[in-house]
Amino acid sequence: MRQQNTYDTIIIGAGPAGVAAGVYVARKKLKTLLITQSFGGQSVVSASIENWIGEIKLSGFELREKLEKHLRAQEGIEIKSPEKVVSVKKQNGSFVVASDKKSYKTKTVIVASGGRRRRLGVPGEDKFEGKGVVYCSTCDAPFFRNKDVVVVGAGNSGLGAVIDLLPYANKIYLTDVLPEVKADQILQEKINKLDKVNILLETQVQEIYGDQFVSGVKYKDLKSGEVKDLVVQGVFVEIGSMPNSEFVKDLVKTDRRGQIVIDSRTQTTSEPGVFAAGDVTDLPYKQNNISAGDGAKAALSMYDFLIKQKSNK
Amino acid sequence: MRQQNTYDTIIIGAGPAGVAAGVYVARKKLKTLLITQSFGGQSVVSASIENWIGEIKLSGFELREKLEKHLRAQEGIEIKSPEKVVSVKKQNGSFVVASDKKSYKTKTVIVASGGRRRRLGVPGEDKFEGKGVVYCSTCDAPFFRNKDVVVVGAGNSGLGAVIDLLPYANKIYLTDVLPEVKADQILQEKINKLDKVNILLETQVQEIYGDQFVSGVKYKDLKSGEVKDLVVQGVFVEIGSMPNSEFVKDLVKTDRRGQIVIDSRTQTTSEPGVFAAGDVTDLPYKQNNISAGDGAKAALSMYDFLIKQKSNK
Repeated sequence: MRQQNTYDTIIIGAGPAGVAAGVYVARKKLKTLLITQSFGGQSVVSASIENWIGEIKLSGFELREKLEKHLRAQEGIEIKSPEKVVSVKKQNGSFVVASDKKSYKTKTVIVASGGRRRRLGVPGEDKFEGKGVVYCSTCDAPFFRNKDVVVVGAGNSGLGAVIDLLPYANKIYLTDVLPEVKADQILQEKINKLDKVNILLETQVQEIYGDQFVSGVKYKDLKSGEVKDLVVQGVFVEIGSMPNSEFVKDLVKTDRRGQIVIDSRTQTTSEPGVFAAGDVTDLPYKQNNISAGDGAKAALSMYDFLIKQKSNK
Repeated sequence: MRQQNTYDTIIIGAGPAGVAAGVYVARKKLKTLLITQSFGGQSVVSASIENWIGEIKLSGFELREKLEKHLRAQEGIEIKSPEKVVSVKKQNGSFVVASDKKSYKTKTVIVASGGRRRRLGVPGEDKFEGKGVVYCSTCDAPFFRNKDVVVVGAGNSGLGAVIDLLPYANKIYLTDVLPEVKADQILQEKINKLDKVNILLETQVQEIYGDQFVSGVKYKDLKSGEVKDLVVQGVFVEIGSMPNSEFVKDLVKTDRRGQIVIDSRTQTTSEPGVFAAGDVTDLPYKQNNISAGDGAKAALSMYDFLIKQKSNK
């Protein structure tokens, strides 16, 4: 396949980081391509977002609409969607971005491919996915009316899942391997006094079982070492996210979690010309506004990089 | 004066960085005070903002409204406005924030006090301020109908001033000490073909003169060394911004421009417990979304700091 044109930059992803990068790059009038599988990032499934700065409250769906509209309002950005990037390689001083459809040549790359939900990795998880094992509480809570469920992970997203389940589930178990709930106080207060919520700390889910659908989990009490059963019809897995960095792992440095290591001042990766922003990076906080701000930083750094390259010629 | 209560944190400023910090801190249910002279940050004077992510276009006034409303919707944040912080000092392991009205004791501080326009520092600038010398093109361009004006500074804000002046001014001179225009391509294209715009690069304005109002400037041609006159009735100063960091200079490390030096990963300053975000910091890019994202980072880092302090006791 021939690459006819060289782009100034290719942005991968269209969550808050990718969209911010796109909007900022558009203002520089560069030859830009944005490749994404979808718009809006991981929050699209949220029923209610109250910390997208400037909006008292909006849904993940509304945030996605706002982001996609803003991006598409930019002149001169080519958008390929849905299209999945499978590799980024260096070639004669520029980069080749290969997708499941085509390859493209570019001077620089901005990786804003975000993350996805982390899986438990226990027996039964794959078998019962969608048959009681779910990863999106907002999407799936209504299907667990009058059921008993376990939420695995007592961080912000776990407590969010409990809150999503409150109007539906009969009994809610909240488990975590840690000895304390690591979530915002505002969320803890919401669930602390509720009879239908049982918090089981220092416990580890070891197996999910059932017949056609989930009928229970085995978990280990980490203090006593005892393995116990929990009779539940639902397992909500809320143990954080994984970076979508596989396609770029051979090119840039990643940490042990697969997150792209960046200089957080300029969003540069270990490979000059490749920038990254948002949940795919090793930045400790994964938040929509942080991704948007860092996407803008990545675009401005990338522009400085191109200008410097030009003036060195 | 006695300080009755100790706050968990005091946020100084309510531009995008301060508001984001406020929204994020509110979710942690901490005892929080926000002190600010105004809301919305430096963009409040912008006629049109097209890069606030999620909004195709809004005015600075609208952005301010959105930010102030979102902040005020948070429960449990005390807001003092208008109130000016004059110093932050360390005292027995906590901090005392003194304003022009009162002093407050706090465990941590988030500095989000932003910046203000940089002045030329030439004779006549003070004398003719508001009498032909202006710092806000959006506010003041309409007053220069059929006048000749000079815009000092050919960066993004200088070119923005030229664009603001286009419907009004007769002749517009754009000057800069640098040999090239350092602005977004999209802005350069807008002004490049216009007869009424004269670009004078490698020139330095040295004096502003007049009688009651500005009648001209003296400038030096940096290539020939020659000093020349420009007959203008307006001088638009667009040479960047200065950090509002005076009140904290004795406490935290600042760079030669007075910007607060931060670890850009966590927004921590040289003083543990004091965090900073937005235009007051030494981060190279000054942008609304970057400030909002970094304000959120500062709030989350501050929270981690408090938690760590607590668990060390």
